[in-house]
Amino acid sequence: MLSTFQEIEEFVLNEKIRKTIALAGAHDADALSSVVNARRKGVVDAILVGHKDKIRDLLGELEEDAEEYVIMDVTSDAGIAAAACWLVADGKADIPMKGIIQTGTFMRAILDKTYGFVPDKGLVSQATVFEYTQENRLMLLTDCAVNIKPEYSDKVKIVENAVRLAHKLRNPMPKVAVLAPVEIINPAMPSTIEAAMLSKAAQRGQIKSCIVDGPLALDNAVSAEAAKHKGIESPVAGKADILVVPDICTGNVCTKSLIYFAGYHTAGAINGTSVPVVMTSRTEGSQAKYYSILTAIMQTL
Amino acid sequence: MLSTFQEIEEFVLNEKIRKTIALAGAHDADALSSVVNARRKGVVDAILVGHKDKIRDLLGELEEDAEEYVIMDVTSDAGIAAAACWLVADGKADIPMKGIIQTGTFMRAILDKTYGFVPDKGLVSQATVFEYTQENRLMLLTDCAVNIKPEYSDKVKIVENAVRLAHKLRNPMPKVAVLAPVEIINPAMPSTIEAAMLSKAAQRGQIKSCIVDGPLALDNAVSAEAAKHKGIESPVAGKADILVVPDICTGNVCTKSLIYFAGYHTAGAINGTSVPVVMTSRTEGSQAKYYSILTAIMQTL
Repeated sequence: MLSTFQEIEEFVLNEKIRKTIALAGAHDADALSSVVNARRKGVVDAILVGHKDKIRDLLGELEEDAEEYVIMDVTSDAGIAAAACWLVADGKADIPMKGIIQTGTFMRAILDKTYGFVPDKGLVSQATVFEYTQENRLMLLTDCAVNIKPEYSDKVKIVENAVRLAHKLRNPMPKVAVLAPVEIINPAMPSTIEAAMLSKAAQRGQIKSCIVDGPLALDNAVSAEAAKHKGIESPVAGKADILVVPDICTGNVCTKSLIYFAGYHTAGAINGTSVPVVMTSRTEGSQAKYYSILTAIMQTL
Repeated sequence: MLSTFQEIEEFVLNEKIRKTIALAGAHDADALSSVVNARRKGVVDAILVGHKDKIRDLLGELEEDAEEYVIMDVTSDAGIAAAACWLVADGKADIPMKGIIQTGTFMRAILDKTYGFVPDKGLVSQATVFEYTQENRLMLLTDCAVNIKPEYSDKVKIVENAVRLAHKLRNPMPKVAVLAPVEIINPAMPSTIEAAMLSKAAQRGQIKSCIVDGPLALDNAVSAEAAKHKGIESPVAGKADILVVPDICTGNVCTKSLIYFAGYHTAGAINGTSVPVVMTSRTEGSQAKYYSILTAIMQTL
């Protein structure tokens, strides 16, 4: 796996990869500047969808030449989302990205069968990519934002989605830790039951191209020393590339603790769609937004 | 609230507080050295329960004079746990602490009605005390270790237990954030329902001596800027002293992310017992064990 977001950037620049973003709701300083920033770095082109006059004004404020951009003048949120999705479905752009429109409106368009972004029987999930600074490597945490209370069959797809993302980030055989509060099987803790099922399913070849082990507590998953202390023999313990959480509460609190407590560099990724989707939140800094764009570019490969 | 573990240490030393620990299973270098360390700092005396010869050998290795310690020679785990609890119930010691005996054996003794450590209708819970380094203040996270899937009535007690601990740490009116993945009410997310109930219960005076608000996502709870971005008006947002998690998965993963990702100083505390209890894990460093002892000393006041 590539080790840092800087390594991802270098990879994209070295390979001369340049993808086109369709920014849905570009009439917003935050969203627009993150795309302009990525364009200046040379990794994307952009089609800007939204209120044309406002977009032109904002480009001026960012000292960009508006003539160098394709701008589609659309006013309603639903129209903006549809236009961005059509641009991608039609091959004019590669990556739909949410700008200043409602998340619900944007996601409804992404999930709309018209565009064919979600394969049959597929499941859309989210993963946070983060730099595990202490070991100088990238890790994935999933699902922190989309599936509220995934059942076992959903979990299988969440794992598969994250494994696919790890492959895109150049890790051909990611190690997947299924997290629980303890590393032993406890029938009173459903997270330990599901972890056992997922581990065994992977061992029986039902989940491919990865090594799965669980239940593992977070310390056993990320620290070889903690795993040794507990006497855990596992090909994943201490070396996990992907952390799978039991539910959205755990994922959401953990991903925010990575940002607000650990101060890690992070990127949000949407998985399970046939095209990469960038959906950042207002509270994310411009750096995090740029990392999300870089991650999406890797997902196109 | 005291701001750091160092401030707690200074408080204990300034007030000349010195409590007696009954170490259950002292025949272990790890556990014994943490108590010896606290004794050298001048904040505790110790009664050492366990295999006497081994304890004397270990004290020698630590360059301590075994004659200065009361050592009770007991061999079985159950006997050791009972002896430590009797010492505290009988007033000979103030704080039972788990050494190298099984957690289950130790906790069964603590919960045994014989010793009267758990009030009628009380609930034992756990809280992690941590230094929120970015803002140089102590915070509490509960429950990360004891209650697997607490119901609403349990949650009320978990909040009350944590509030009592905050009071002991010299915060007379702690701000309690009830965490969920989002800050809005969503009937599909039980964590948001319980958060609404707890907030309103506190407003109606059913939970006292604290300010409760929720649902709050972790970013809104600990970052004033994130709360402002989201337009959240709340007396707790951005200023939370106590974080209440929906379940043990969230708490356990979050507390371990504080240790392994954020690298924070932390201490584990047992709440809801009539005497403080120190229960540290093998994987904790000696610093964390010392902080747990300091926290327990504050709980005796």
